[in-house]
Amino acid sequence: MPLDVPTAQNSTSVLETFARVRGDSEALARPLSPEDCMIQSMEAASPVKWHLAHTSWFFETFILGPHAKDHTPFHPEFGYLFNSYYNQIGEMHQRAKRGMLSRPSLDKVLAYRSFVNEALIRLIENADDETLAVIEPLVLLGCSHEQQHQELLITDLQHGLFQNALKPAVYTDARAGEGGNAPALKWREMEGGVCNIGWNGEGFAFDNEQPRHKVYLHPFELANRPVTNGEYIAFIEDGGYQDPVHWLSDAWEVINREHWDAPLYWRKSEADNQWYRYSLFGEVPIDPHAPVCHVSSYEAAAYASWVGARLPTEFEWEAAASLFPLEGRFLEGGAPFLPKSAENPANDDSLLQLYGDVWEWTASPYVAYPGFAAPPGAVGEYNGKFMSGQMVLKGGSCATPRGHLRVSYRNFFPPEARWQFSGFRLARDCN
Amino acid sequence: MPLDVPTAQNSTSVLETFARVRGDSEALARPLSPEDCMIQSMEAASPVKWHLAHTSWFFETFILGPHAKDHTPFHPEFGYLFNSYYNQIGEMHQRAKRGMLSRPSLDKVLAYRSFVNEALIRLIENADDETLAVIEPLVLLGCSHEQQHQELLITDLQHGLFQNALKPAVYTDARAGEGGNAPALKWREMEGGVCNIGWNGEGFAFDNEQPRHKVYLHPFELANRPVTNGEYIAFIEDGGYQDPVHWLSDAWEVINREHWDAPLYWRKSEADNQWYRYSLFGEVPIDPHAPVCHVSSYEAAAYASWVGARLPTEFEWEAAASLFPLEGRFLEGGAPFLPKSAENPANDDSLLQLYGDVWEWTASPYVAYPGFAAPPGAVGEYNGKFMSGQMVLKGGSCATPRGHLRVSYRNFFPPEARWQFSGFRLARDCN
Amino acid sequence: MPLDVPTAQNSTSVLETFARVRGDSEALARPLSPEDCMIQSMEAASPVKWHLAHTSWFFETFILGPHAKDHTPFHPEFGYLFNSYYNQIGEMHQRAKRGMLSRPSLDKVLAYRSFVNEALIRLIENADDETLAVIEPLVLLGCSHEQQHQELLITDLQHGLFQNALKPAVYTDARAGEGGNAPALKWREMEGGVCNIGWNGEGFAFDNEQPRHKVYLHPFELANRPVTNGEYIAFIEDGGYQDPVHWLSDAWEVINREHWDAPLYWRKSEADNQWYRYSLFGEVPIDPHAPVCHVSSYEAAAYASWVGARLPTEFEWEAAASLFPLEGRFLEGGAPFLPKSAENPANDDSLLQLYGDVWEWTASPYVAYPGFAAPPGAVGEYNGKFMSGQMVLKGGSCATPRGHLRVSYRNFFPPEARWQFSGFRLARDCN
Amino acid sequence: MPLDVPTAQNSTSVLETFARVRGDSEALARPLSPEDCMIQSMEAASPVKWHLAHTSWFFETFILGPHAKDHTPFHPEFGYLFNSYYNQIGEMHQRAKRGMLSRPSLDKVLAYRSFVNEALIRLIENADDETLAVIEPLVLLGCSHEQQHQELLITDLQHGLFQNALKPAVYTDARAGEGGNAPALKWREMEGGVCNIGWNGEGFAFDNEQPRHKVYLHPFELANRPVTNGEYIAFIEDGGYQDPVHWLSDAWEVINREHWDAPLYWRKSEADNQWYRYSLFGEVPIDPHAPVCHVSSYEAAAYASWVGARLPTEFEWEAAASLFPLEGRFLEGGAPFLPKSAENPANDDSLLQLYGDVWEWTASPYVAYPGFAAPPGAVGEYNGKFMSGQMVLKGGSCATPRGHLRVSYRNFFPPEARWQFSGFRLARDCN
Repeated sequence: MPLDVPTAQNSTSVLETFARVRGDSEALARPLSPEDCMIQSMEAASPVKWHLAHTSWFFETFILGPHAKDHTPFHPEFGYLFNSYYNQIGEMHQRAKRGMLSRPSLDKVLAYRSFVNEALIRLIENADDETLAVIEPLVLLGCSHEQQHQELLITDLQHGLFQNALKPAVYTDARAGEGGNAPALKWREMEGGVCNIGWNGEGFAFDNEQPRHKVYLHPFELANRPVTNGEYIAFIEDGGYQDPVHWLSDAWEVINREHWDAPLYWRKSEADNQWYRYSLFGEVPIDPHAPVCHVSSYEAAAYASWVGARLPTEFEWEAAASLFPLEGRFLEGGAPFLPKSAENPANDDSLLQLYGDVWEWTASPYVAYPGFAAPPGAVGEYNGKFMSGQMVLKGGSCATPRGHLRVSYRNFFPPEARWQFSGFRLARDCN
Repeated sequence: MPLDVPTAQNSTSVLETFARVRGDSEALARPLSPEDCMIQSMEAASPVKWHLAHTSWFFETFILGPHAKDHTPFHPEFGYLFNSYYNQIGEMHQRAKRGMLSRPSLDKVLAYRSFVNEALIRLIENADDETLAVIEPLVLLGCSHEQQHQELLITDLQHGLFQNALKPAVYTDARAGEGGNAPALKWREMEGGVCNIGWNGEGFAFDNEQPRHKVYLHPFELANRPVTNGEYIAFIEDGGYQDPVHWLSDAWEVINREHWDAPLYWRKSEADNQWYRYSLFGEVPIDPHAPVCHVSSYEAAAYASWVGARLPTEFEWEAAASLFPLEGRFLEGGAPFLPKSAENPANDDSLLQLYGDVWEWTASPYVAYPGFAAPPGAVGEYNGKFMSGQMVLKGGSCATPRGHLRVSYRNFFPPEARWQFSGFRLARDCN
Repeated sequence: MPLDVPTAQNSTSVLETFARVRGDSEALARPLSPEDCMIQSMEAASPVKWHLAHTSWFFETFILGPHAKDHTPFHPEFGYLFNSYYNQIGEMHQRAKRGMLSRPSLDKVLAYRSFVNEALIRLIENADDETLAVIEPLVLLGCSHEQQHQELLITDLQHGLFQNALKPAVYTDARAGEGGNAPALKWREMEGGVCNIGWNGEGFAFDNEQPRHKVYLHPFELANRPVTNGEYIAFIEDGGYQDPVHWLSDAWEVINREHWDAPLYWRKSEADNQWYRYSLFGEVPIDPHAPVCHVSSYEAAAYASWVGARLPTEFEWEAAASLFPLEGRFLEGGAPFLPKSAENPANDDSLLQLYGDVWEWTASPYVAYPGFAAPPGAVGEYNGKFMSGQMVLKGGSCATPRGHLRVSYRNFFPPEARWQFSGFRLARDCN
Repeated sequence: MPLDVPTAQNSTSVLETFARVRGDSEALARPLSPEDCMIQSMEAASPVKWHLAHTSWFFETFILGPHAKDHTPFHPEFGYLFNSYYNQIGEMHQRAKRGMLSRPSLDKVLAYRSFVNEALIRLIENADDETLAVIEPLVLLGCSHEQQHQELLITDLQHGLFQNALKPAVYTDARAGEGGNAPALKWREMEGGVCNIGWNGEGFAFDNEQPRHKVYLHPFELANRPVTNGEYIAFIEDGGYQDPVHWLSDAWEVINREHWDAPLYWRKSEADNQWYRYSLFGEVPIDPHAPVCHVSSYEAAAYASWVGARLPTEFEWEAAASLFPLEGRFLEGGAPFLPKSAENPANDDSLLQLYGDVWEWTASPYVAYPGFAAPPGAVGEYNGKFMSGQMVLKGGSCATPRGHLRVSYRNFFPPEARWQFSGFRLARDCN
């Protein structure tokens, strides 16, 4: 199964990957005003402008600084302003105050991007083989890093614009009208035994997907597709949010404190008694066939309890998903879209929509694989230090850049997070 | 003593005042980018763009809506977005989230301003005398309201830009170099007795300055000028912030919780051991002769205790100030500047710098005057409902629009507020 | 008008006052268990045991330590545990953690009281005239301080026990059944002019009641009695808590954040649709004739707005009250009771219930009188440092020890405080 | 390997277990005053008195109520006051306010215990075989529940008394002087492969230890004993708390926000430059040979990073520990003690102190075993709903009642919790 990951075997293909990824970020920002690019709606979200600058800072800090001779930083304060969380690099601008940075302007940030692009291309083009061997993995890490921020750019922007009563539509849905009827829910039985989990393929993968290792799985069943909006509405209307029996203790506290009674962005219209959701295309009616999206892992687990099922572990998900090709609806060419329903399956026992459309919450806390070791130095802060208090999501979403994903890819967010394109698929034990 | 308050006796002069005030707001915004106009650094501060829109909403809501025939609002959601705190008008956008409004854009807000200007001018020009008698006080109220927001625009902007390590300079100091040496501190004795306090002049004044009423004052002494930066530095360097004996209980809690050890915006350079402050002109050295600025009433009171004095009451201040002409350095033509030292007095027993440069904290909590009555309706929420938990400041500052002030003017802020141009003058009892 | 303040002209009467006041505190604690004496329900409230110890610490710290030769403190840590807020004395146990002090036991605290009593009596009995002249005012201050804590002991205890679903009754109402019908509301007109305000009598008074000084009052009218429960219920049932027009801005925020819709301790029974309140005698029906109690100054002001009146200033209250004898229902012999209705007036134009039953919120923030000076040293922290963010209450309550009050007495609490026995009386301007 | 778990084969042995466990709780409370039994120092901790009552409520609610004919509850409000978190039972007293319950008194709670004891004994003695088969597992669950609360009683009490500057000693160390020198650190290699994990023995076990299932383990090494105080002091003195490289992101935030620089209860004396800790026996010097205790999982993981090791997973721990007998120093006869050093090993390749002394943090988040199912009804809220945001600890401590533990026992606390007797043991991968 050929995976379209950011990969390269020589400086030419590294340059191509670099150019494509950098261009994709700018394409996403193009329809937006400088003001749109400045919104920060919560500490966990960042302005579009900050994403554009921080991804450039990453290349400058981890590659240009150490490896480009006589590199002079674009601006002496950008290292402070656009460091996200790398304590070993030094102090940084407060996360909660990223939305207060009117300066540098969006134009200046775009100039910073050009500056970094040119310096990095020059560095790669002039690098000898030894240097190339050192910087190529870092360039690919930087590209994957930037792709992650493309998805965050979209989800943070959506959250920011949602705070506005104008409910702005800032994009056109690249695939409007594509959705069909969701296929009937079916259970696919998976054999257990010792499985291999984690990355061992060619090309780039994150440290947290490695090393490949063995996991024992008990036989289990997996739903053929994610839970749909229509199914989730039945849970809501059955009083699911009011019955403590389905909820984890932490979850019950959150839904009561925050008054949650539906997924994020949802609103039941008093005019027509129908559900609507805010999206980057404005407010749209809920499509009952599309996978439910913008739920927390708490809500996913509560729904699963309500139907007498559970969420799969990340190992169950990965073992099953590795049987199917990595295909799905991803972000392409800077054009986001809404999650849509699965297509009707050609093959009766396949698993549908494993990839793309919505991330799938798993039952697995995000912890290190056996034998995991973070790289030395500040770049080692990338993934390892977040292995606490978060849950693994698998499979990518409609906001994940095409080619960014792997079957072994481990996304992770706190269990109460809802602003990603997060849905879920049911699992259950075999009897 | 002729006061240059917004005043008008016929539709022509009302129109002139209106045009001037509206233009001044836009002049202040002109050097700023749309991104600068979007910063909100704390709940109590608002983005420049929001100030520009809200002041227009005020005219639309209180004048055009009720009085212009067939007036259609510029946008159906602006009433929600730009209502500040008028509960009787309806629900409103959350105050803490004003900085998340990328839409409407600054351009759109400027278009909104033009729309309101044109409609209001049309209304005034075509109004019969009866209508004019009703709307003229409201137009003048709206103009005074807008002038207040011009000052807030400056102070909120300064606070917002201060969050940025780039320390942006966004204006040029309109009066750079003007300051001289502060005159020596002298005490001016004031007789006591029954005084008249509050507004009874011609032209516009706020409801909270009225009615004019009698207050009994005991004899007191007032300093000839505000406390200077140099004097305040002596307090800092004597350990003033570390000695509980000078501080109110609430103050002691705040300075310890917030780790205050100098006025807002101040920084002692490790390079040259000198004090600097952030300003809208960038970071500048502290001028020891200029009045201390950006202190809370807590710090003002602690300093006064340290020198064995106290703050004047608002009544003492007003009674004394009414003996002197309303002259001072105010905001003019959309050009802010930094507080400067007092000029050397021609007259040995005058009170200097009563007006302009820095607001002066008084010892008086902001409460109603005897006989105070708020106007009926939502416009009555303007001042009266804030008569709790705030202290009165007098005299205006370098960010107060020229012509906005009166001797009876009562500004009010919570005692811990520091982001206004707030200083203070000492008083003491006569022996 | 002879006032029954704690007063003394020689060591004998000082000793009598001291013995009586100290005994009264213990009488209040006698019906309580050691566990009852340990409850702390919020930071602003303290356990009964802590009150008993702190009042002893006051005598030990300000009198025995400086003036009793060779005084060895009862326990080396009690100075840390029972210092309330005297920063000049040294560090102290955190206020919010007073309820965590199981040790010293109540028995040990009572032993501490005996130890202090004996040492102080010995000191007074053996003091020469010169020493007596120095310590007598401090002993009287300590007695007044302890009386204040007697009232706090009651109000803090009531708040603590209220947290318990058992609704414990811990006292017997010393005057149950005494209440009658409230007289009709009548307005008493008061002349204005320059009045003398503050203490200048014989005997002890707090620093904050001094110096006596002149205040100019405009003519006003004062209600003949406090607002009753029945009148306040009409406000509730008219939707008073839901209409922003009556509320200060801070107040509107508090009542919405805290979901206030009635006075503290009130509950409307679903069984009989009647109002009840928790008291130290258990839950009792609301007496419509009794003065409303346990309201904040915000609620007092909102009610006043609803009836088209206002609260009196502390000066109006004091000037009017000084025309009437200081009589009322106070705490006597360690026996609290519930506020009751005013008796029917013998004299048609008198002001009823000025003293006792409920403290009356005024419209006056708590600030220094002209010429006020706190005593030097740590004892100066007693009153002066709290002159910020609080409102003055006048007249005492059913929980105020008889003999503690003066017409000039200024009680003060934050405007949102409700756990004192706080009611109010209406005022209005003369037309 | 015979395990001394609460177990019973007939009503006689159930009664013996019940009587012993109930008596042990009261023995722990016996040296304490009613005031000691009322302290609550944080929301997560409960007063001793509440523990004594809640464990009785458990028997009354889950056994007497449903199974004892004509059972009348001891008090109609105790169901509200002493329900901990069983939402399906009904509403409950706020957790943070358990320390405000002066009523019922400790005496009344002891009477409640007697009442429940007598009713339960009567029920068991008179039960037919069918009833006995139903209630016996519930009685054993209630006994294990009560043993858990015995440990919490000790840890909550220690935390409560620690808030007091008197540093009270409330027990005598039952095993003072027993500790010796810690053996040298050695690594024990463990083979990997498919292991069986979880409970399948006779007698009682919690639902969360079941079902027994297979887990694949990679070869690993485990330290022969827990990390000692002496070793941990070296980490502190090497600046371990100041170097971000060792800390998880959440951990770094906590140690900086809370200013942690040593384990809970530790203090470095300025007098002798030695470390001391608060304990229930008063403040005692740190024994460098004893296992470090009262650290969070964050600190455990940071220490492990500092020495180039890691924490074991719960599966590694259990697989290794199942090779050794369940022996160790536990709570016995109501007499707590301090953790001590391991004895010198007879056998060179054994694992020492697996059980007792200190709980050992693992690297495993607390989640459900494959096939886990909570029991139906409210009793199912016991364990399952807490499977979020917590980490597993293994092996029991000196505060765990002897006989309560199993090798499969899974204790769980949030990663930042420090007030349990929590230490850790190192693991590392095999090369």
